[in-house]
Amino acid sequence: MFENKEKTEINKLGEFGLIKHLTKDFTIKHTETAYGIGDDAAVIATNPKQQVISTDLFIENIHFDLMYSPLMHIGYKCISASVSDICAMNAIANQVLVSIALSSKYSLEAVEELYRGIKASCDKYNLELIGGDTSSSVTGLMISITVIGYADEKKIVKRSGAKPGDLLVASGDLGGAYMGLQMLEREKQVFLDQKDMQPDLEGKEYIVGRQLRPEARTDIIELLDEIGIIPTAMIDISDGLSSEIFHLCDHSKIGMRVYEDKLPIDQQTYDTALEFNLAPTTCAMNGGEDYELLFTLPQADYDKVKNSIELTVIGYCTEPHLGLEMITKSGNVVSLEAQGWENFKG
Amino acid sequence: MFENKEKTEINKLGEFGLIKHLTKDFTIKHTETAYGIGDDAAVIATNPKQQVISTDLFIENIHFDLMYSPLMHIGYKCISASVSDICAMNAIANQVLVSIALSSKYSLEAVEELYRGIKASCDKYNLELIGGDTSSSVTGLMISITVIGYADEKKIVKRSGAKPGDLLVASGDLGGAYMGLQMLEREKQVFLDQKDMQPDLEGKEYIVGRQLRPEARTDIIELLDEIGIIPTAMIDISDGLSSEIFHLCDHSKIGMRVYEDKLPIDQQTYDTALEFNLAPTTCAMNGGEDYELLFTLPQADYDKVKNSIELTVIGYCTEPHLGLEMITKSGNVVSLEAQGWENFKG
Repeated sequence: MFENKEKTEINKLGEFGLIKHLTKDFTIKHTETAYGIGDDAAVIATNPKQQVISTDLFIENIHFDLMYSPLMHIGYKCISASVSDICAMNAIANQVLVSIALSSKYSLEAVEELYRGIKASCDKYNLELIGGDTSSSVTGLMISITVIGYADEKKIVKRSGAKPGDLLVASGDLGGAYMGLQMLEREKQVFLDQKDMQPDLEGKEYIVGRQLRPEARTDIIELLDEIGIIPTAMIDISDGLSSEIFHLCDHSKIGMRVYEDKLPIDQQTYDTALEFNLAPTTCAMNGGEDYELLFTLPQADYDKVKNSIELTVIGYCTEPHLGLEMITKSGNVVSLEAQGWENFKG
Repeated sequence: MFENKEKTEINKLGEFGLIKHLTKDFTIKHTETAYGIGDDAAVIATNPKQQVISTDLFIENIHFDLMYSPLMHIGYKCISASVSDICAMNAIANQVLVSIALSSKYSLEAVEELYRGIKASCDKYNLELIGGDTSSSVTGLMISITVIGYADEKKIVKRSGAKPGDLLVASGDLGGAYMGLQMLEREKQVFLDQKDMQPDLEGKEYIVGRQLRPEARTDIIELLDEIGIIPTAMIDISDGLSSEIFHLCDHSKIGMRVYEDKLPIDQQTYDTALEFNLAPTTCAMNGGEDYELLFTLPQADYDKVKNSIELTVIGYCTEPHLGLEMITKSGNVVSLEAQGWENFKG
């Protein structure tokens, strides 16, 4: 839980001073970046690969809650979530532009914390900060991130290429970020009711980490390249597996069949779901923010993925008229509704 | 002044429905755009030119006031202001990503108005909308724009190339947007004091238009290309001439001398400044949001610009130790302080 120890007012630095101050430790890493921060625009030289661009907004009290999210983690998570979109195209992110709007309640030290997280994630993902904007805001903190990645034209993967018969594969495990959020919300409530209580998150480090400081699966993109796989379709799991399955089916004009007993759920996620009287399957299907990858493969590629501990075949693609179905542990076939994290919350 | 006639709640459409609805009339215009809206990211093919990227934030009650700015104009202006940054690099903008966060006070019709303005400016500047994000916000409207442009490597102009002896040139006229803002602020006050009063902006159409619906000077970039000029340094005049001169001098490590009697001030700007008991020179020097271009040229290029009605030589570059000076109409030399629009307002 974040507190300010001492506060420096930002307007002492001015807008240009603030940008210079916050970006002084960021370095240029890629040869195509001809010119980064400091002019009217950044300049990128030609690159033989195709360019992949995505942009995302992160808004206080909509996307994050300062009651339990340290600003450093917020900075890290915004970059992870944005890089995840580039991963979902089977591309590697190289550059990022970060704009922030913040109200007067934010001190320079607070913004420095945010940028420490941004810097840590840029270092982790080998990403350059090449531009951005800063502004005051009427309330709270707003972050806008634009990420630029690259891939060979023939390796770019859209949502639209899955065919009936293709296997459906998920990376990592699912539902953890959602259960982490439930833990944090519960401890926030305890704290609000009784101010001298300290949050008790012991034994919940994995799921809390999944919520507060998720990673983009750039390692999976590298792994796919190593094992010689180009998915037929791919998306990142930001809104929940169920919602992403819906998008893949919608774009690829297919149906899908998912096996409940194949869903990769970590033990801590599973146990915590039960503690909260939630079905682990529901958390895995509808909990958002895992930032895992969901992709489809021709069956011929099965041997390449079957022994990976990071990849799980969770189902397969069907003819479109069959729709979206789950085979439950008891062998029943149930229809999946399009249902994202937003709906799940309400 | 904007009013809602009938309101449709946005959450009926959902986030994906909203994006689809708002972007349905936007078209792909440039051959390098391989894939626009609709996947995790947009895809841009290789282009032999260098790429120029800039991002800007526009926030309700910080950058615009709905009391006197119609939403269509706000949409148009955000794009103009962003494209202006690309012009300032001597590049042509081709693609744009637009993210919006909005509170529940905004109806679908209001957001459609905003996008009508965005569409009009995309059409005007031959710009493609290739991506974006939408979110709810706690208060008001926030717009984040990322623009991508292109230029031959040897034609890209930074702020840093001006040399002592170079001429200082401004496009168009200055101070108009600022005087338009004064008019609008005055009429807003009249309206707030006496609700049945209608705003009286007769005879002020030019300056009000400069404030509400400015244009990026893409025509000047084309003109420079036609007359065979590559500026040695360039910046767009968004914060005020004085502030931009400061940036050019700072980046190019030079001084500058500006002639008061050369400043291009439109008659309506001039007359309105006097009505408000403001010095027209102060409005031209410190009033922001004109989105004109300010650039430097070798003296040898003087013949190419001397007869242009759109370009005015307003001074020249000096040795750095001479600093920033203005030669007043009465022949006095006064020092210019770094002073942007923000300071001017307070």
